[in-house]
Amino acid sequence: MHTRILEHTFEEYLEIAKTFHGAAAPGVLIGGFMVDAAIRNLPNGITYDAICETRSCLPDAIQILTPCTVGNGWLKIVHLGLFALTLYDKSTYEGARVFLDAKKVEPWREINAWYFKLKSSKEQKREDITREIGQAGSNILSVHQVKIQPEAVEKRHKGKIVVCPQCQEAYPLDDGAACMLCQGNTPYTQELQMQPDIFRSSNIL
Amino acid sequence: MHTRILEHTFEEYLEIAKTFHGAAAPGVLIGGFMVDAAIRNLPNGITYDAICETRSCLPDAIQILTPCTVGNGWLKIVHLGLFALTLYDKSTYEGARVFLDAKKVEPWREINAWYFKLKSSKEQKREDITREIGQAGSNILSVHQVKIQPEAVEKRHKGKIVVCPQCQEAYPLDDGAACMLCQGNTPYTQELQMQPDIFRSSNIL
Repeated sequence: MHTRILEHTFEEYLEIAKTFHGAAAPGVLIGGFMVDAAIRNLPNGITYDAICETRSCLPDAIQILTPCTVGNGWLKIVHLGLFALTLYDKSTYEGARVFLDAKKVEPWREINAWYFKLKSSKEQKREDITREIGQAGSNILSVHQVKIQPEAVEKRHKGKIVVCPQCQEAYPLDDGAACMLCQGNTPYTQELQMQPDIFRSSNIL
Repeated sequence: MHTRILEHTFEEYLEIAKTFHGAAAPGVLIGGFMVDAAIRNLPNGITYDAICETRSCLPDAIQILTPCTVGNGWLKIVHLGLFALTLYDKSTYEGARVFLDAKKVEPWREINAWYFKLKSSKEQKREDITREIGQAGSNILSVHQVKIQPEAVEKRHKGKIVVCPQCQEAYPLDDGAACMLCQGNTPYTQELQMQPDIFRSSNIL
């Protein structure tokens, strides 16, 4: 069993997780052991990329411990709803997929309750589950050797960038005759979007 | 014009960006000024969440400078292809949207060439564009006051978690009778997926 997370003790990693993630959440803590296990299952010295199969917590363990981030594109989040991550050789597409193994988790009462959401967040005691995670280390994980389909992780190129004739912002021409926002694909309320001059006037730059 | 990025000088931020993002890429550097501008356009002391309208570079500026990360869910990436970010009050959904303003960028030759991809990456000189970004500071940005549609940023709840009858991994029952991977929604090559026992045997844990 491994109880270290790369060069860190569990306690050290706990503090790093708090700083980046805002809390030492179970998913980020277990994720630390998962990244560690994936790296130990890769050949030494290779350049790797990452896949994360959930957007909850786990991407942060990867971003804390590896060079792979969402913004640099070396970490790709594939929404499969599984608590699993893969690190793979950029040149061969071969890698190690690490997952939280339901069978191995079963004896660990607090981790199991968290994983299968058997307790409400109020009933969960953070100290108990943190202690169990530190004790379990890599014992609750399994590793698969996998090969990635290159097209699944291919970088999409944005193509030509032009100015949107409606809002004057730069956007990828492939998106159509106007930017996605002006096409109505927006997380913002309409009344503000339709009065750009009003809210542009309040800039503090 | 602002040339500082929160409590950092541009040069300090450049080093932080290198460490997290792997390189002081133009998008992360400009992103630093964008986060700074967004925060200065919010009321003091509020708790905010983030929206990023592109997955390229910009999410890392947010993750470096704010408590919002992909893994903790406070940063949501909405794929609009626009170089813009919004920080908004969690309770009122009102916020500041900052974007790289094409009109203001025009006089800055290197930034403009990067933004509109007018030069190949070989033709771009990293030092020239970095220098321009430091000189331009917040001068190339504009800010909108926006209000978020709550449903656009709503957290999806995973619902009941069960064991997949095929691969025995835990997955959200809402996904169907088997997990997404076993349903064939997979970034991995099929031959390895179909022989779990072979690759499970090589675990190093």
